[in-house]
Amino acid sequence: MAKERKHVVIIGGGFGGVNAAKILGRGKEYRVTIIDRRNHHLFQPLLYQVAMAALSPAEIAYPIRSLVRRYPHIDVLLDEVVDLKPDQKEVVTKTRSISYDYLIMACGSNHSYFGNNEWEEHAPGLKTLGQATEIRRRVLLAFEKAANEKDIEKQRQFLTFVIVGGGPTGVELAGSIAELSRLSFRRDFKNLDTSRTRVILLEGAPQILNAYPKKLSYKAALALEKLGVQVWTNAMVTKIESKGVYIGDDEFVKTSTVLWAAGVAASPLNKKLGSELDRGGRVIVGQNCQVEDHPEVFVIGDQAHFKAKKGDTLPGLAPVAIQQGQYVAKYLNQMAKGKKMGPFHYIDKGQMATIGRNKAVLKAFGIEMSGMIAWFAWLFVHILYLIGFRNRMVVLFQWAWAYLTFKKGARLIIDKEWRTHSRLDADI
Amino acid sequence: MAKERKHVVIIGGGFGGVNAAKILGRGKEYRVTIIDRRNHHLFQPLLYQVAMAALSPAEIAYPIRSLVRRYPHIDVLLDEVVDLKPDQKEVVTKTRSISYDYLIMACGSNHSYFGNNEWEEHAPGLKTLGQATEIRRRVLLAFEKAANEKDIEKQRQFLTFVIVGGGPTGVELAGSIAELSRLSFRRDFKNLDTSRTRVILLEGAPQILNAYPKKLSYKAALALEKLGVQVWTNAMVTKIESKGVYIGDDEFVKTSTVLWAAGVAASPLNKKLGSELDRGGRVIVGQNCQVEDHPEVFVIGDQAHFKAKKGDTLPGLAPVAIQQGQYVAKYLNQMAKGKKMGPFHYIDKGQMATIGRNKAVLKAFGIEMSGMIAWFAWLFVHILYLIGFRNRMVVLFQWAWAYLTFKKGARLIIDKEWRTHSRLDADI
Repeated sequence: MAKERKHVVIIGGGFGGVNAAKILGRGKEYRVTIIDRRNHHLFQPLLYQVAMAALSPAEIAYPIRSLVRRYPHIDVLLDEVVDLKPDQKEVVTKTRSISYDYLIMACGSNHSYFGNNEWEEHAPGLKTLGQATEIRRRVLLAFEKAANEKDIEKQRQFLTFVIVGGGPTGVELAGSIAELSRLSFRRDFKNLDTSRTRVILLEGAPQILNAYPKKLSYKAALALEKLGVQVWTNAMVTKIESKGVYIGDDEFVKTSTVLWAAGVAASPLNKKLGSELDRGGRVIVGQNCQVEDHPEVFVIGDQAHFKAKKGDTLPGLAPVAIQQGQYVAKYLNQMAKGKKMGPFHYIDKGQMATIGRNKAVLKAFGIEMSGMIAWFAWLFVHILYLIGFRNRMVVLFQWAWAYLTFKKGARLIIDKEWRTHSRLDADI
Repeated sequence: MAKERKHVVIIGGGFGGVNAAKILGRGKEYRVTIIDRRNHHLFQPLLYQVAMAALSPAEIAYPIRSLVRRYPHIDVLLDEVVDLKPDQKEVVTKTRSISYDYLIMACGSNHSYFGNNEWEEHAPGLKTLGQATEIRRRVLLAFEKAANEKDIEKQRQFLTFVIVGGGPTGVELAGSIAELSRLSFRRDFKNLDTSRTRVILLEGAPQILNAYPKKLSYKAALALEKLGVQVWTNAMVTKIESKGVYIGDDEFVKTSTVLWAAGVAASPLNKKLGSELDRGGRVIVGQNCQVEDHPEVFVIGDQAHFKAKKGDTLPGLAPVAIQQGQYVAKYLNQMAKGKKMGPFHYIDKGQMATIGRNKAVLKAFGIEMSGMIAWFAWLFVHILYLIGFRNRMVVLFQWAWAYLTFKKGARLIIDKEWRTHSRLDADI
């Protein structure tokens, strides 16, 4: 083409960024650069299965470069954005400055410790593959340590798992640990009574799965309790230490493993826009996902505060990010042709959370469901949306195998320290 | 049974240890404890495929506990042996002392930097899953950095890969990096001319694959050169720094990625036996794999110096460890029944090394072979020996997919640092 292509920069290769990139790539109107500090797109909804030793990291991740390899005008940059200069239309990364004509911010969310970031050391959250393998390491090590421990008091501490946050991730983690212990580990740990495992799910609100109707939340709690999970609602964590968790004014649970599934943090980049943020630090966007003072900047997904027609703010879910990414890309493609597009409409395809073997809750298109059918629906939808034919096949196979044999496929404790020589030398 | 079972302690859950344990478990004569500092048995011959992003760690590893779950008298202990007291018949781990009636040392080998352990930082070896993922991270990052680099001099440094050691591991790594660059990455990195990648294989001896006949070694070198690997024989590394590798008196190659596949180190535990060691620090064992002064101690696999009838010392290969493990276990089972067993005989089933797509070298039962048929034999044998039906299926599927599509299944750069909050805070 004779005309110079305008440059679209996308920050983040998650659901929002990748879906925007693909449509821009097909439209051939722009030159696109995707910046991400990791080399892979991650299928977040199955991340808890990596943490729970059911899947391998590579089975739910895909190189961003490979996702867009067929589009000649899309570049991928492995780098970290450290600053934004919206007035100069510039993104500053660790290695360079990049100017843009249009910017799509699709940075996703991090977890928040509500001002207590020192808790992270003792209570990892679950947003990245690095965190998932760290959680896997901690959970598997806790069982190994319990098996090696003669002191009953200490053994109980190793066999106690506290999950903070009763959203979908917290529910999935709690259910999985209970199943690991009851079903997978019972025969492997001969000297350990795995029925002594305590899994405690803490939720600050009066019910778990707050985004779901009361009835489904109640059914989920019942199903969790059947698996041996203790559900403590109205339970506010006040402190987390290496030896345990403090709840409310004076309760204390001794545990060696705390997992964090509560709270979402705003990206510090949002502040650089100089635009209005909501109480949670998200950017308030208009009906085209645009930033008010900078119509060339779009914010989508978890970091966008988008008011739907009914007045509800859209939740931080994968379908929202996907649809917003596709919308913004279509909007830009239309704009290049001199056409206009109407405002973004979210098509609510429902929500679902799995609790364990054969159990899930689901609400979609006005239907509420729980149990086995919801669980199959969950399986189907997640396999369907998983990227790449190979990953789908391998995950399907791993699931079928785990379902039939009760064995988990990725029960690995991998050393954090890869160097071996310092240690060996010390031994000699 | 009325009689008290005697206690066999096995150090190491590798090929030797696991095969000994299974036969002891079936024999039901002993109480067995396997001690390993990792929770998984590792299929070492395919470890380079994890390092080269073709397989996931879980696909070549299996929990030791699950391998022996069916044997009621086998315990598994995740712990590190720090001392041996052969006169007291005691093994000392980080957490306890364990007394034994019989001890099987199957500790395997570590790599050696010939007194230059400071090289490890710049040139990781390949013995553990932690090291394999570290190598994967370095190799993938080097390509990403090369793609981001405008300076031609620096880009060449990122695109230069030096592998030290021309044994099977070195050959497999060199061939794989060349293929990654030429076949898998060519379309993914649009702004990078991956034909500029330099892969240099350094070997101190006059030929690579020293354990193979000259003709096969020559064919392997030819096949590597066809893939774009430069094979430098008689090349002694004198120093490794972050910026490159010094060879001989005055040669210097600038590179950001050095991989170490040369030299094997003796386990420091060997010295504690007070028995005779060979020049390499391996324990010289008798014809029953026993230690001379301590007939209740057996040493098998890589750390044993076993003189075969012809006068050759058995090499550090998986089949040697497997057969010795099985032999020692049968020997002990027979002993419990008051029977005697003849000396250990190694059945040489041959050796093979793969060079790349459709290329391998093989010598077995007097036959020497190279090319496509050797490569299929390699595939077949490795799938056959891989533990676990699930792993076999998944690996087979990954290989078929990679072969047809030229895509690698595990192209992940996972953060070493899982904590995210220190960094985010610094940004705000």
